[in-house]
Amino acid sequence: MAPRRPDPLTLAAAVAGGDRTALARAITLIESTRADHRDEAEKMLARLLPRAGGAIRLGVSGAPGVGKSTFIEAFGLMLIEEGHRVAVLAVDPSSKRAGGSILGDKTRMARLSQSDAAFIRPSPAGKSLGGVARRTRDATLLAAAAGFDVIIVETVGVGQSETAVADMVDLFLLLIAPGGGDDLQGIKKGIVELADLVIVNKDDGDLAPAAKRAVADYRHALRLLAPAGGADAVETLAVSALERRGLDKVWSIARRRLDAARASGAFDERRKRQAQAALWREIGDGLIDLFRADENAGRVLPGLESKVAAGRLTPSAAARQALEAFRN
Amino acid sequence: MAPRRPDPLTLAAAVAGGDRTALARAITLIESTRADHRDEAEKMLARLLPRAGGAIRLGVSGAPGVGKSTFIEAFGLMLIEEGHRVAVLAVDPSSKRAGGSILGDKTRMARLSQSDAAFIRPSPAGKSLGGVARRTRDATLLAAAAGFDVIIVETVGVGQSETAVADMVDLFLLLIAPGGGDDLQGIKKGIVELADLVIVNKDDGDLAPAAKRAVADYRHALRLLAPAGGADAVETLAVSALERRGLDKVWSIARRRLDAARASGAFDERRKRQAQAALWREIGDGLIDLFRADENAGRVLPGLESKVAAGRLTPSAAARQALEAFRN
Repeated sequence: MAPRRPDPLTLAAAVAGGDRTALARAITLIESTRADHRDEAEKMLARLLPRAGGAIRLGVSGAPGVGKSTFIEAFGLMLIEEGHRVAVLAVDPSSKRAGGSILGDKTRMARLSQSDAAFIRPSPAGKSLGGVARRTRDATLLAAAAGFDVIIVETVGVGQSETAVADMVDLFLLLIAPGGGDDLQGIKKGIVELADLVIVNKDDGDLAPAAKRAVADYRHALRLLAPAGGADAVETLAVSALERRGLDKVWSIARRRLDAARASGAFDERRKRQAQAALWREIGDGLIDLFRADENAGRVLPGLESKVAAGRLTPSAAARQALEAFRN
Repeated sequence: MAPRRPDPLTLAAAVAGGDRTALARAITLIESTRADHRDEAEKMLARLLPRAGGAIRLGVSGAPGVGKSTFIEAFGLMLIEEGHRVAVLAVDPSSKRAGGSILGDKTRMARLSQSDAAFIRPSPAGKSLGGVARRTRDATLLAAAAGFDVIIVETVGVGQSETAVADMVDLFLLLIAPGGGDDLQGIKKGIVELADLVIVNKDDGDLAPAAKRAVADYRHALRLLAPAGGADAVETLAVSALERRGLDKVWSIARRRLDAARASGAFDERRKRQAQAALWREIGDGLIDLFRADENAGRVLPGLESKVAAGRLTPSAAARQALEAFRN
């Protein structure tokens, strides 16, 4: 039998004390959809929030095969050697999170997961990206309150998950790998708009020349498509996660940008904007849930949707009718 | 005194007959926010919808100074010479639409506006992009029902207006201009993701060499950042709107892509998806309006928002509390 969960404020105190087991339990609590659990989770979060402001949150995205796990492990170990405490959380709405998934995460980052200064947590299960993102967002607060001062939020880039991650971090790193030869790997549409830093991994062995070319090419492309804006300009560099080269450069660029953002007020501004956007996104999602659960709206909606799809009713007219049904 | 507006079905019949004055009146009707006008507008649209499927809708975006008006005028005149009827609508949420704005549109496209086969309409007034976009979307249906078979929806690219336009057209053209010398003009963040076709204008006079270089550069950049996807790949070409060169190429690329999309079913699929997305966007906007107008929600919201902004309450907890207030 699993031990009984302590009450929320006791759990909060244990999290604040840096207890990794308590942190894991606290995250499990916020991931629960049960109403009584959500009440407890909110009490706990309310207690911990004043301690959750200090950590840096970095988003890391990259397609499968770019060496994301190797990068995060090597980068995390470097930070730990410098005295940081590193939490790795994930946003992957496609993750089923079987029992083996946690093991999977610990296996793929074996050395990092063994460090006392690291905390690794796979993606919460969930079909809706909104739900997964909300719980990861709250988990970053818990990890920060537990004294992890660098929080890496990883995404595998399914659907809109990069946008969700970019909306909850202070800096967004995009990892790419050079192709062999001249054919560079195209970056998933939309994602380059989110990146603060583009990192070409695998600058080692046979791929080293291609990695260098890739940096030059992406740098040029980014200058055209994401106009230079001083501090906001995207930077591009090559690293070898395998040989642990260039990771200190990533960290120094990240720190420089975050320091500049703190000095200018952009850092706090971004966090405030993210929190407000999250509030309205959740209100919007909640309203849509209410709407979908509404009997009157439910009665008219299928007919309206099919008329709209068939071009027999304008979306505006259909929306108006559906909202009228909802209001009554 | 303005003449009395005919009843909606009489107006619909006149629009269907290709009467441009009736079309202008019909658009004015759908732009009205008065409840009785909206009822009439929906009756009229319902009658005209079955006739509104045939036209091609092209989005055209570009920053001020790229020669957008010159391009649309020259492109429109070319289409008219080929026997098409061309409507130009605009989405510009910043437009105040003073009396002079219509005149402004007709002045800047003087020759096109004088053609019997053209219809030019400035952006509807409105502070919310959603409202402006909805009315322009409905206006494209009216213009199509009036027999305009190529409908150009223009945007000046304020805020998210390109996304709104991309969501209502069959093909999205992005116009850019080469800088003098080597410095290429950066493209506004996010917009390149929407473009089906990138057109480098001003391939004439002193700028011709720069235009050619720009095409090569953008083509390369787009290959990196918007991976080749067969029919979905972005194409880049140079034109001179001023000297009317390359416009036939734009039209032949557009037709080829649209024909391919029709043959594969992607055309209908895109329209269906756009209509359904518009429906849900409008339902979402309408729900937010209901929420904002709700007394209970209104009482708690300011406090919740400021707590979230100050980092003293999580967005999830605040959203939950606000939604509970709304439900009661």
